[in-house]
Amino acid sequence: MIKMSNEILGTDVVVQIGIIVKDIEKAVEEFSKIFNVEKPEIIITDIYEKAHTEYRGNPTPARAKLAFFKNFKNVEIEFIEPDENPSTWREFLDKHGEGVHHLAFFVKGTDEVVERFKNHGIEVVQKGDYTGGRYTYLNSFEKLKFIIELLENF
Amino acid sequence: MIKMSNEILGTDVVVQIGIIVKDIEKAVEEFSKIFNVEKPEIIITDIYEKAHTEYRGNPTPARAKLAFFKNFKNVEIEFIEPDENPSTWREFLDKHGEGVHHLAFFVKGTDEVVERFKNHGIEVVQKGDYTGGRYTYLNSFEKLKFIIELLENF
Repeated sequence: MIKMSNEILGTDVVVQIGIIVKDIEKAVEEFSKIFNVEKPEIIITDIYEKAHTEYRGNPTPARAKLAFFKNFKNVEIEFIEPDENPSTWREFLDKHGEGVHHLAFFVKGTDEVVERFKNHGIEVVQKGDYTGGRYTYLNSFEKLKFIIELLENF
Repeated sequence: MIKMSNEILGTDVVVQIGIIVKDIEKAVEEFSKIFNVEKPEIIITDIYEKAHTEYRGNPTPARAKLAFFKNFKNVEIEFIEPDENPSTWREFLDKHGEGVHHLAFFVKGTDEVVERFKNHGIEVVQKGDYTGGRYTYLNSFEKLKFIIELLENF
C-alpha cells in the first residue's frame, strides 16, 4: 500500500495550483475560451492594513490580482498577477517568468506545520491574511521545485 | 452551479502534475524525506524504436528519467529529468529552469481532442508511446502557462 504524504502537512490533498501571469485579464480570457467555462471575477488582495502581508520577514505593500477557476473537479486553478512591490509572486515572475508558482494545501494549525518544515530547512517566505483565513508560502522551491502554500480558514 | 471544464478534454480531472528537474535523484530524495514516504523507482523513457518520440514533428532520440509520487490523494506528482536531445522537457528546462511543466489528463480518442485544441491555435508539440498507452503534449504554455498532456491508455 502506498503511504500518503500527510504527516508533515496533516493533509494529502492538493487543493490548488497557483499560476503566475503577466496579464491576468488575458489569461482568464484564454482559459475561459479554451475550456468553454464562465470567466471568474478578478479580485485584488487586500491592502497592507487588512492583509498584513510579510515578505521575507518584512511588511510589504505588495498586492496581486487573483482569479480562481473551480472548473476542474479535483483541484482549483488560480491565476495571479503580481504588482511591482516585493513579494514571492513578483520574485517568481522575475526569476522564472510565467508558470506554476505553488501547490496549496488546507491545514489546521499553521504554526505547527511551519515548525515541522523548519526541520527540513524550509522556511516561511511570505504570509498574510484574507477575509476568513490566512496563507503562508514556504521557500520549498529549491528542494521540491514548487512553493508550498498553507491555507488555513478559521 | 459551476460548469465543469470537460468539453474539450472529455474529462475534468487533473491526474498529474509534471515537474522538470535537473537532478532527479536529488529531487526524489528531497520529496521522500520531507513527506516521509518511500522513494519510487526512477525509470527511463523508452528508446526511439519503442517510444517513437516526435518533437515538433520530427523524430528525436530524446529520453527522460521519470519518477512518480502517488502519495497525494487527488493528483500524482511526476519528476522528469530530460537528457540533452531536443524535447519539450529540455526546451522547458533551458527556457524556464526547473518547475512545473505540465498538467496531465486521461483522455479517450487523442486525435479528436487534438483536433478540438487546434481550433484554439493549440498544437501538438511532442508525442510518443509507452507500454500500454500513448502521450501527447500540447503547446498550450503561451496561453495557459502550463503544458497540457493527454494520456491515453489502451
